[in-house]
Amino acid sequence: MNTIGKLYTLTSFGESHGEALGGVIDGCPAGLPLSVDEIQYELDRRRPGQSSVTTSRTEEDRVEILSGVFEGVTTGTPIGFIVRNKDQRSRDYDEIKDLFRPSHADYTMQAKYGIRDYRGGGRSSAREHVVRVVGGAVARQILKRLGIFVHGYTSQVGPIVLNKTYHELNLEETDANVVRCPDSVVAGEMELFIRKVQEEQDSVGGVVSCVIRGVPVGVGEPVFDRFQARLGYYMMGINAAKGFEYGEGFHAASMRGSEHNDAFMMRNGQVRTLTNHAGGVLGGITSGEDIYFRVAFKPVATIGQEQQTVNCFGKEVTFIARGRHDPCVVPRAVPVVEAMAAMLVLDMMLEAGKVPSRV
Amino acid sequence: MNTIGKLYTLTSFGESHGEALGGVIDGCPAGLPLSVDEIQYELDRRRPGQSSVTTSRTEEDRVEILSGVFEGVTTGTPIGFIVRNKDQRSRDYDEIKDLFRPSHADYTMQAKYGIRDYRGGGRSSAREHVVRVVGGAVARQILKRLGIFVHGYTSQVGPIVLNKTYHELNLEETDANVVRCPDSVVAGEMELFIRKVQEEQDSVGGVVSCVIRGVPVGVGEPVFDRFQARLGYYMMGINAAKGFEYGEGFHAASMRGSEHNDAFMMRNGQVRTLTNHAGGVLGGITSGEDIYFRVAFKPVATIGQEQQTVNCFGKEVTFIARGRHDPCVVPRAVPVVEAMAAMLVLDMMLEAGKVPSRV
Amino acid sequence: MNTIGKLYTLTSFGESHGEALGGVIDGCPAGLPLSVDEIQYELDRRRPGQSSVTTSRTEEDRVEILSGVFEGVTTGTPIGFIVRNKDQRSRDYDEIKDLFRPSHADYTMQAKYGIRDYRGGGRSSAREHVVRVVGGAVARQILKRLGIFVHGYTSQVGPIVLNKTYHELNLEETDANVVRCPDSVVAGEMELFIRKVQEEQDSVGGVVSCVIRGVPVGVGEPVFDRFQARLGYYMMGINAAKGFEYGEGFHAASMRGSEHNDAFMMRNGQVRTLTNHAGGVLGGITSGEDIYFRVAFKPVATIGQEQQTVNCFGKEVTFIARGRHDPCVVPRAVPVVEAMAAMLVLDMMLEAGKVPSRV
Amino acid sequence: MNTIGKLYTLTSFGESHGEALGGVIDGCPAGLPLSVDEIQYELDRRRPGQSSVTTSRTEEDRVEILSGVFEGVTTGTPIGFIVRNKDQRSRDYDEIKDLFRPSHADYTMQAKYGIRDYRGGGRSSAREHVVRVVGGAVARQILKRLGIFVHGYTSQVGPIVLNKTYHELNLEETDANVVRCPDSVVAGEMELFIRKVQEEQDSVGGVVSCVIRGVPVGVGEPVFDRFQARLGYYMMGINAAKGFEYGEGFHAASMRGSEHNDAFMMRNGQVRTLTNHAGGVLGGITSGEDIYFRVAFKPVATIGQEQQTVNCFGKEVTFIARGRHDPCVVPRAVPVVEAMAAMLVLDMMLEAGKVPSRV
Repeated sequence: MNTIGKLYTLTSFGESHGEALGGVIDGCPAGLPLSVDEIQYELDRRRPGQSSVTTSRTEEDRVEILSGVFEGVTTGTPIGFIVRNKDQRSRDYDEIKDLFRPSHADYTMQAKYGIRDYRGGGRSSAREHVVRVVGGAVARQILKRLGIFVHGYTSQVGPIVLNKTYHELNLEETDANVVRCPDSVVAGEMELFIRKVQEEQDSVGGVVSCVIRGVPVGVGEPVFDRFQARLGYYMMGINAAKGFEYGEGFHAASMRGSEHNDAFMMRNGQVRTLTNHAGGVLGGITSGEDIYFRVAFKPVATIGQEQQTVNCFGKEVTFIARGRHDPCVVPRAVPVVEAMAAMLVLDMMLEAGKVPSRV
Repeated sequence: MNTIGKLYTLTSFGESHGEALGGVIDGCPAGLPLSVDEIQYELDRRRPGQSSVTTSRTEEDRVEILSGVFEGVTTGTPIGFIVRNKDQRSRDYDEIKDLFRPSHADYTMQAKYGIRDYRGGGRSSAREHVVRVVGGAVARQILKRLGIFVHGYTSQVGPIVLNKTYHELNLEETDANVVRCPDSVVAGEMELFIRKVQEEQDSVGGVVSCVIRGVPVGVGEPVFDRFQARLGYYMMGINAAKGFEYGEGFHAASMRGSEHNDAFMMRNGQVRTLTNHAGGVLGGITSGEDIYFRVAFKPVATIGQEQQTVNCFGKEVTFIARGRHDPCVVPRAVPVVEAMAAMLVLDMMLEAGKVPSRV
Repeated sequence: MNTIGKLYTLTSFGESHGEALGGVIDGCPAGLPLSVDEIQYELDRRRPGQSSVTTSRTEEDRVEILSGVFEGVTTGTPIGFIVRNKDQRSRDYDEIKDLFRPSHADYTMQAKYGIRDYRGGGRSSAREHVVRVVGGAVARQILKRLGIFVHGYTSQVGPIVLNKTYHELNLEETDANVVRCPDSVVAGEMELFIRKVQEEQDSVGGVVSCVIRGVPVGVGEPVFDRFQARLGYYMMGINAAKGFEYGEGFHAASMRGSEHNDAFMMRNGQVRTLTNHAGGVLGGITSGEDIYFRVAFKPVATIGQEQQTVNCFGKEVTFIARGRHDPCVVPRAVPVVEAMAAMLVLDMMLEAGKVPSRV
Repeated sequence: MNTIGKLYTLTSFGESHGEALGGVIDGCPAGLPLSVDEIQYELDRRRPGQSSVTTSRTEEDRVEILSGVFEGVTTGTPIGFIVRNKDQRSRDYDEIKDLFRPSHADYTMQAKYGIRDYRGGGRSSAREHVVRVVGGAVARQILKRLGIFVHGYTSQVGPIVLNKTYHELNLEETDANVVRCPDSVVAGEMELFIRKVQEEQDSVGGVVSCVIRGVPVGVGEPVFDRFQARLGYYMMGINAAKGFEYGEGFHAASMRGSEHNDAFMMRNGQVRTLTNHAGGVLGGITSGEDIYFRVAFKPVATIGQEQQTVNCFGKEVTFIARGRHDPCVVPRAVPVVEAMAAMLVLDMMLEAGKVPSRV
């Protein structure tokens, strides 16, 4: 299943070290002057080798749009695109081709399909996220016209937690530092911590927080396609994601109703809530308040230390990963979380009949 | 969207105080001698009025199977069923029909559809879960034949947390107490806490933990229909759910790769892992290890205290909820979490081609 | 797969001689004052025993709406309904329970599922069409508000062919005779022919023609969900349907482009066509012209003559069908064709964004 | 909606004169040594300029596989591919950019999307069929391993009808002539007729017949996803298709039950039918007999004669089409019908659980 979405869909293909990755965006409204630069900008935010805390692999990740756009404007027909793989260096992977790397998908892919492209994780590589970033970058251009904005940021790296709500942060500063944490002091600590972990041939997990502003009341389809259910599906489909929560999330478990309930009030002739513990969704339908949520990521599975594992022949062996890899996935996961959220919001806005047929 | 599932699907209908709730199960394999008693047993576990910590409303919740079964055996055709509403007492709801109750779906349903059945929350009521419990109870009968078992239990009620892993618990004892916590001491504390909250006209949240045993390696469809992505979708579609995590979940964010990685080893000729921080899924595909996850629930929105809100005419008002309601949703959410998990597992087992055509 | 539709969906359940047939309509817009009488009217048009040319079985076919309607108005939530089976007379079917009746689904159902409800064809019975008629009757009430009307009629019974286009007929007279042919002379011939066939213990096929008026330009989703492709799917999913054509249909094969092309012209400020050989669809998208199509039906498989067949044990046997059955399915197929067409049109109108969120 | 299929899916993109057409095949079983030559062979059969009766446009139509294949073998991951457009000659289309060509999709596309790529019909061009031919060519390689074969052939061109059943023909000779009619005499007449029509600046319609051999009993999902319903959907989704029938098709309308019913008998220990009027499907499920069907095509809309039409500005004008085009679509439609049929059969074989997980 390599298609996501119901009305705004993305079909993804491609392996880490194959000819190309690419995809098909279907359901994009006609009439959008599509900015390829904005797509490329998002790809560059996800690109490896962009900073001292990411892998030193350098991939150009240049998107090529093949259809769906005529004289610069979307036509309502499917947008096909590819991103060619350049820096393949397949030789790096020869020595692991018969191994099941711990906490990678090598074993389960082999068990499921009986064959796998072992080069760089093949289809299971997070490199597949480039396809999603393109899908999200197109969605964001539509959403911008509808007054909807998605802001992700790093809120935790290992033990270092950003203890501020999004109201206390200037989200415009997210990209001002390499870890994408919009608090320069905490960002500095995170960066130092990532470097320390890297020096110790280790990796570390983290959390991406995200706020969606501007979604009107009425988006979400009870009872199964609740806004949060589909958002959870999109987020848990990102590589290395281990948890999802929105509004008060797990903290709500220790709260009382009298604390958690959001009183309704009138503001500027609109029904609004005094607080927003709910996180912008009631009964699976958006309330018009900000939507905010968090996604937990596990530490990167590839580490430079010796690990115990087994090989394809059922023999227990030890191995040390070579090659370049990120010590922490979170800074580069920010644009992926945003891309997935943008696609979901556009999809559900379409389903709720809240997107004009020509934007 | 009132259908869930791809190959084993449940279509749900019905309102809290309408004629009946019901559903259609499609994709159930032929050849299962269906036990209606086992379905009724699960409905009774979810039934209100079953204990001192649940609402005193009494609903009989008797399931009536209308099709798909011939001489007691499933035929592969859709299983239609209804559960008639008995104890309707619609008069309880007259005084709230023009109100938007805080943290309920009244406002968003009204905004989305322009009309709503206000009696007991109508379609947004958790009473709709009876339909899911039936769908899950049928799925569990198939799964049992495949050696797959789903065990849910209460692991947190407000501030009271069960600090044991599922390995340290006897999950057979889950139903031995009214809160469905398989540790009698902690269960006692939880029960006392719920009563205290109830006396204070308040409510409280909690967490349901769940373990799935017996799923073979190879279930889950990369890249979007990862096992955990669809599981997250199923769980976040339950009323009042605010968070989902599997394996180490949010805790993984503060771990290092050297800690979190699960070394592969051989056991009885099988590839297994020494630890199972991953929670039974690698790269979106089950690994053959236990799958475990947690779902956070917010406190029940209905409380007996005065609350501020607005009515349908845009006027700010105060109100106090009358009628009967649960102080804590978690004990009755356990069978719902299990039912949803069972349906998801069967659906993905079917997709992976791991269910014989006749069970 | 017992669900049809993408945005206006019908999920169907029930066997010919089970407890009840029923279904769930999902995606019906909120705000429709639903007329149960109009639903019942359509069910009565399909009902057996309604005239001298249909089976003498009498089924009451009373629909019971269970949800989705509040104070007589649709709420946007799913409409669950059942039609209880009354006149079951299961004993009629005992002697065929081990037989595979020629040209029925007995053999293929048994081969696929290993079990079947043999009473009256079980799930394969055309009695399942009652569910579709309900789904269509609700759709028609929405379409009427949008100025869209669906008119089906009998245009062929065996060798007797109605050689008039729909422009030459008064479609309001369709129900004026028992065969539902809006030409009283041809209708008389058809009725006589059906009686003759019936006396000869035989059955006969026929054709239903249908016109859809009022669909605006722009409905249909290239390249796969063309209007005619989905219409064909809906029609070929009716029991006993063997062929579908729209516009000039098979006749187009022998035409030249200079004959078949429809010249564009302006009429009342609208782009229209001078002729309408196309049948109201260009490139898979409706053109605003009338949509017309035809569906061929095979002769009823149940006949009163001795036939050769095999039984479940692989033994060749002969048998004569007992019980009551239609000599020609076409008169009762008219409301089914209309119902399916209505559901399809509403579904695609919704997808094209041409239905207001509250009707 | 540019994705077709449920388990074996094809997502299509691309315009006639854009950068490239392409697609994504999802659900292809792992373990198939994929022959790119066989794909190219099918593309060449559909290619324009291949004979005297097709358009003289020459397109190379070279497929480039980008993913899903590792060391020549399918891996179960999605197969992305592109076919670059070479011979674009966009200048041919400048004079029609503001026109609505009769019986083309120009008007309806413009009305639906408010914009269209007018070059060569853009997305509405039958050139999009190259994507389907690739999808079908991959499916056929799987089907071949399962002993399933799809044979299409031209059975009518304008008034010239091939009056033989497929049993009377040697289907291996289909490609022996330019019209793809496996009867050399009739083929000669058809070829002459097409040339005559071409000389008269006209076009003509026709019929493609098709036989599918080797599908086992049990494929097809009642009640809506009947084999014939989905087959009809696939066929009616081909450009210029106006009608679909299977088995006796429209002829069944004039038959009696005693004629049309297929008696069951035992042959080699298998339940078989003496005749096969049904066309290989009973109750929506394949019976194990040959499946045969016919698809009617309208005459090509582009003709060299003056036609009346209107332009985008609502003005009535006349025009004469320039450029190269086919006088009859049928010879080149044969591989498209086969491709679509192959994809449908594989999809439904997968759904019926009749394809091993590794072929």
